[in-house]
Amino acid sequence: MTEAATAVETLRLAGDTLELLDQRRLPLAVEWVRCNGAADSAEAIRAMVVRGAPAIGVTAAYGIALEAQRLAASAEEFGSRLEAAFAVLAASRPTAVNLFWALDRMRRVWNETGAAAPAAVAERLLAAAKAVHAEDVAANRALGEHGAALLPDGARVLTHCNAGALATAGHGTALGVVRSAVAAGKRISVIAGETRPFLQGARLTAWELQAEGIPVTLITDSMSGHLMARGEIDAVIVGADRVAANGDVANKIGTYMVAVLARNHGIPFYVACPLATIDHAVAEGSAIPIEERAPEEVTGFGGTQWAPAGVAARHPAFDITPAALVTALVTEVGVVTHPDARKLSALPGKASS
Amino acid sequence: MTEAATAVETLRLAGDTLELLDQRRLPLAVEWVRCNGAADSAEAIRAMVVRGAPAIGVTAAYGIALEAQRLAASAEEFGSRLEAAFAVLAASRPTAVNLFWALDRMRRVWNETGAAAPAAVAERLLAAAKAVHAEDVAANRALGEHGAALLPDGARVLTHCNAGALATAGHGTALGVVRSAVAAGKRISVIAGETRPFLQGARLTAWELQAEGIPVTLITDSMSGHLMARGEIDAVIVGADRVAANGDVANKIGTYMVAVLARNHGIPFYVACPLATIDHAVAEGSAIPIEERAPEEVTGFGGTQWAPAGVAARHPAFDITPAALVTALVTEVGVVTHPDARKLSALPGKASS
Repeated sequence: MTEAATAVETLRLAGDTLELLDQRRLPLAVEWVRCNGAADSAEAIRAMVVRGAPAIGVTAAYGIALEAQRLAASAEEFGSRLEAAFAVLAASRPTAVNLFWALDRMRRVWNETGAAAPAAVAERLLAAAKAVHAEDVAANRALGEHGAALLPDGARVLTHCNAGALATAGHGTALGVVRSAVAAGKRISVIAGETRPFLQGARLTAWELQAEGIPVTLITDSMSGHLMARGEIDAVIVGADRVAANGDVANKIGTYMVAVLARNHGIPFYVACPLATIDHAVAEGSAIPIEERAPEEVTGFGGTQWAPAGVAARHPAFDITPAALVTALVTEVGVVTHPDARKLSALPGKASS
Repeated sequence: MTEAATAVETLRLAGDTLELLDQRRLPLAVEWVRCNGAADSAEAIRAMVVRGAPAIGVTAAYGIALEAQRLAASAEEFGSRLEAAFAVLAASRPTAVNLFWALDRMRRVWNETGAAAPAAVAERLLAAAKAVHAEDVAANRALGEHGAALLPDGARVLTHCNAGALATAGHGTALGVVRSAVAAGKRISVIAGETRPFLQGARLTAWELQAEGIPVTLITDSMSGHLMARGEIDAVIVGADRVAANGDVANKIGTYMVAVLARNHGIPFYVACPLATIDHAVAEGSAIPIEERAPEEVTGFGGTQWAPAGVAARHPAFDITPAALVTALVTEVGVVTHPDARKLSALPGKASS
């Protein structure tokens, strides 16, 4: 995995163990959670040890591969147990399509093995998971190169949540574009929305940019409109958890607000994601399932509750930004300006990726 | 102060002590901070023990009155020391105009005492502070009645920050409208934006509505656009820290974003405030000073820092909503639809209030 070598490492394979950087603890502690199969990988996704659509996809692929290794050792009921592993991973989180994309791909590899022995199947699945991992880094680097051209020298770029190295297997999507622009010699500064309730912006985006010396300024999610009105933001770039066939974008809750404000202020709004994030089977954003998470994540943070006990709270974890608000979609095969159903259907589809 | 009797008490006079409910500690603890003069009252305002434009105004009036009482006891350099009291209070926070309005009013009372003895001046100032206090409650009740007519039965009302009893001497401005509508028999439910970084929505609005049994649901500031897009918000109502002569509104950071989104979704956006909040001396919002507070309030909360050490952060505490986005201004003398300079200049001015 030398392609994954960035300053920030999200996940790594060590023997028959998947090691995940615990993103719940960053930046206060750098700790690793170890997974050896499907159940613990699914729990790590559910509990948000690992998050970000591409990173979830890679984790799911390794979850299947490691489970196959475990099961091959005993060789009993290999098929039905591996089937159960697919089910437990598919049930971990509903919105990011990369999860289902990675599981579909692993299933195709399994199907292609025919009547091979469990050990041989496990070997093929591990190779497939490693390929998913390596391809994610390569896709991010490619989309970073394409997107970098969109950012002028000196640009002050707002991002929401963390679509960085920590959301992927390396380099990042939205922050991959920033990294590539910086690598090309442009002076880019990032304004990071803190992204309540999980604070991915404050904890993860701030941390990984700071680690690489890219200028970053933290704001609360309530401040981006004010900064836009004052002319202090030149572009917005975010990642995506799922893009519908018509270009509607599901991404972290709060993305839609930023997109409306960007349009209102004449500021370009870019979405960076690999092709694996485009779900050609979903016609439009309203059909994308929006995960509702626990209200306790809204009434406080990290074990501390500050709202009065017993108060009701809502926690939709994602929202939908209509394609009409997206200035361009940045993928590993190029930039799609003003994305729509026709343009997206012309991209390489899931089956060929 | 029987007019101030609501379920929630923000401040009260006990002998020669002003007792302020410590809003930094709510809802986890109900504690009172005691002030006996101008310096400790100013510090309570600066540190946000008390906040909300009307409550700041009442606190400043009492700060002058109690300082005059203290100074009258020794009677040395009464005039110059009282002058210094005005200066220390005026320097506590820059945006809420009610602070300066209350200080101007107390100064006029002082000026009118001519060559009276310090004890007599102090007596007059105490009576004036009590009048400011009682009039604030009366203004809130009156604007609540006017505003209640704007909310239909069954309305789901979004509010930002806390413009409730805790922001005033009682009843509240934005939440005063909600209270009056509920008292009139309407079924109103409130969606409270948590209002990072100080979390006035999560801690104060949720607490005071819960205390009175008015249905309230907490959301992060990033969620209001999503709920509007899904048709789950019928109206927005907020308070104000200062309204310019043309109707531009300075209010808690994040208000502007909500106003843009409300306009975008065809949802009415109401601003509730007493006449004392209208600053006829400031032509438009761009001339209102926006307080920049400590970045440490953005990189964490309540002593806990979650962003990486040393990261830069911005903390504008207020923003400006252009009058064009305001559906109506709700005051104690009535509702001003589509406020503009002509309509505001026809309202009773500061001098007569």
